[in-house]
Amino acid sequence: MLNIKITPATEKKAKPDSKHLGFGVFYTDNMLVIDHTEGIGWHDARIVPYQPLSIDPAAMVLHYAMESFEGLKAYRKPDGSVQLFRPDCNAERMINTNKRMCLPTLPVEDFVQAVKTLVKVEEDWVPSEPGTSLYIRPFVIATEPHLGVRTSKTHQFIIICSPVGAYYSTGINPVKIFVEDEYTRACPGGTGFTKCGGNYAASLISQVKAHDLGYEQTLWLDGVEHKYVEEVGSMNCFFKIDGTIYTAPCVGTVLPGVTRRSCIDLLKHWGYTVSEERLPIADVMKASEEGKLEEVFGTGTAAVISPVGELRFEDQVAYINNGEIGPVTHKLYDTLTGIQWGTLKDEMGWTVPVE
Amino acid sequence: MLNIKITPATEKKAKPDSKHLGFGVFYTDNMLVIDHTEGIGWHDARIVPYQPLSIDPAAMVLHYAMESFEGLKAYRKPDGSVQLFRPDCNAERMINTNKRMCLPTLPVEDFVQAVKTLVKVEEDWVPSEPGTSLYIRPFVIATEPHLGVRTSKTHQFIIICSPVGAYYSTGINPVKIFVEDEYTRACPGGTGFTKCGGNYAASLISQVKAHDLGYEQTLWLDGVEHKYVEEVGSMNCFFKIDGTIYTAPCVGTVLPGVTRRSCIDLLKHWGYTVSEERLPIADVMKASEEGKLEEVFGTGTAAVISPVGELRFEDQVAYINNGEIGPVTHKLYDTLTGIQWGTLKDEMGWTVPVE
Repeated sequence: MLNIKITPATEKKAKPDSKHLGFGVFYTDNMLVIDHTEGIGWHDARIVPYQPLSIDPAAMVLHYAMESFEGLKAYRKPDGSVQLFRPDCNAERMINTNKRMCLPTLPVEDFVQAVKTLVKVEEDWVPSEPGTSLYIRPFVIATEPHLGVRTSKTHQFIIICSPVGAYYSTGINPVKIFVEDEYTRACPGGTGFTKCGGNYAASLISQVKAHDLGYEQTLWLDGVEHKYVEEVGSMNCFFKIDGTIYTAPCVGTVLPGVTRRSCIDLLKHWGYTVSEERLPIADVMKASEEGKLEEVFGTGTAAVISPVGELRFEDQVAYINNGEIGPVTHKLYDTLTGIQWGTLKDEMGWTVPVE
Repeated sequence: MLNIKITPATEKKAKPDSKHLGFGVFYTDNMLVIDHTEGIGWHDARIVPYQPLSIDPAAMVLHYAMESFEGLKAYRKPDGSVQLFRPDCNAERMINTNKRMCLPTLPVEDFVQAVKTLVKVEEDWVPSEPGTSLYIRPFVIATEPHLGVRTSKTHQFIIICSPVGAYYSTGINPVKIFVEDEYTRACPGGTGFTKCGGNYAASLISQVKAHDLGYEQTLWLDGVEHKYVEEVGSMNCFFKIDGTIYTAPCVGTVLPGVTRRSCIDLLKHWGYTVSEERLPIADVMKASEEGKLEEVFGTGTAAVISPVGELRFEDQVAYINNGEIGPVTHKLYDTLTGIQWGTLKDEMGWTVPVE
C-alpha cells in the first residue's frame, strides 16, 4: 500500500474543447511521481502539479533508453461515474517489461492504487463526449547520471494523464496497411514483447515509409524469416479466414495487448475458433485471392478496434470486405466500447470503478 | 558553419583527482546545446553552464526512446596541446544513426565544429595522467510533448564532457567473456548498426546474466541463427585464427566502430589478412580445440583495445593465449594509444588538433 502525498495544483488549467481533443495533446493539472533508489526501493510517492522534469543531461534514460511505459484509459459512464478497464493487466505487463529491461518493478496493487488515486484527483478531466476518455500514461525512467553502460541506481515511476478524443473522429473507417518487407520490429531473444521505448523508436522509419506510399500503418512480419504476420503499427492484429480467427502468438516478439486478450476472450465466449498459431503472410494473401479473407482488424488501447480495408504485400493487394467494417469486427468494437464506457453490462468482470 | 554563442559558467567546479576518475562519473563546467525545430532546422547553438535539462514529462524521448548518441575523446599530448581522434567518423555515424531513427541530422562540419568549440572552452578539463582523457558525449533527444507515436517536431543536440581514467586501472588484463545464447542484440532490418539508446537498454539483461555467472562481458551472436559472432559487450570483436584476423561484417546488425575501422586499417597496413566474412562461433571453439585460436580482443572508444582471455560457449570454454595479452593485440593497443595521446607520429592522418 503506497502512502501517496497529495499536493495538487492550486491553479487549474482551462479544459480543452472535448470535441477537439486529439490524442496525447492536452495534459491534466497534476502528475504522480514515485522515486526508486537502489538499496531503498520505492519511496516518496506524491501527486504534484504537472511540471517539467529536471533531468541531468547525463541521466541514463537520455542515452541508453532505459525506460518503459504503459497505456490505459479512464471512461465516463452514463451515470457520471468513472471506471478503468483491466488496470491489473497493465500492471502485470509493466512488471514483465521491467524485468526484461532491468528496471525496478512496482507491485500490481501499488500500480493500480497509483492510477486510481491520480484519476480520482483528476476526475473532472475525464471527458463525457461520446468516444472520449482520459488516457493514462504510467512510465519508468532511469535517472542516474552515469555514462557507463550498466543498470541505473535511481529511477522514477511517473503517471501523466491526457484527455483524448474518439480515435476516429469521422467514424470507424477501415485503414490501408502496408506489409513491411525491409525493416523489422522484433526478433526472438529481443524486446518485442515489452513496452520499452526502443521498440517504438525503431518502428518510426517504417511508419514514415508507409505514409509516403499512401498507407496508414505498417504490418510487421517476424524478424527471422519475414514470413509470419506479427503486429500492425503499434496494435495487435487479427485475421478472419474462412470462419476461423487468427492472431499471432505472444512468444516473445509480439506485445501481449490487453485489448488483444479481451478480444480473444470475447470471441471464444461467442463460440469462434481463435488460432494463435503463426500465420504466414502468404496464407493471408492466398485467402484473399480465394475470397476467404473475411475480416482484418488491429486491436489496441488507443483505437480499441481498427478495421483494415486494404493490405499491400509486395506487388499484391488484398481488399477486405469491400472496404467496410466486418460484422465480427463491429461486434467486438460495440461490445468492448460498451463495457468500457459502461453502456453494456460488464459480464466479464473487467471494469474497476474509481471511487 | 554554426554561430555558437558562448556563455560559460562563471563559477568553476573543483577538478577531481585525475588518478581516480572512473568512467562517466564527473562532468565538466559547461555543455553545448543546439535546438532543432521542424520547418526551421538547427538553431540557437550555445555553450552554457552544465545544468539539468527541463524536460516535459510527455517529451517523446522519455516514452519512445527517440534518442541517439556518439562517444569520442580528447587527448592531452606530451607538449600540452589537445587533440581529437577521427571526429568526422563519429559525425558520419551519427548521421547514419539518425536517418534510421528518424532524428534530424547535423552536418559533419557542424558536428566537428561543435565538439572542437566545447573542448576548447573545457580545455583545462582534459587530464594529463597517463591513460586519462576527456570523454565527449554528443547526443540527440526528441523533446516534443506528444504521446502519439510519430516523428517529433522538436529536438535537441547536446554535448557533455567527462574526464575519464585509464579504462584498466591495473593494466590491461584479459577479460572473461560469456557467449550469449538466449538474448539477442540485433537482427537484420533492425537498429544494430546504430548508436540508438534502445540497443543498449535491450542489452543490460545479458550483462547482468554474464556478471552473475562470473563473466565480465557478453559476446553477442546473430539474432537469426544464433550462430555467427557479432559484438562483445558494447565493443566490436576480433579473432586471430591461424594467422588470419576475423571481425564481423558491418551489414546492418553490427556497429561500425571507429576503433574497429582503425584497427582494420592498421592490420592491413602491417600486412595481416583481415576477413570480414561472417564467423561461426563453432569455428572459433574448434580453432581453440586445435590450438589455432591465437588472440581475441574487443575494440571501442572507452577501452580502445580489450584483450579476451577466456570465452565460454554453452559447455565449452576456450582459453586464449594463456590468459595473456597477445602480440597483435598489444601492438594495436600501443599504436592506437600512441597516436591518440600523441606519443607516436600520426602517419594515418587520424588526429585533429583542438586550437
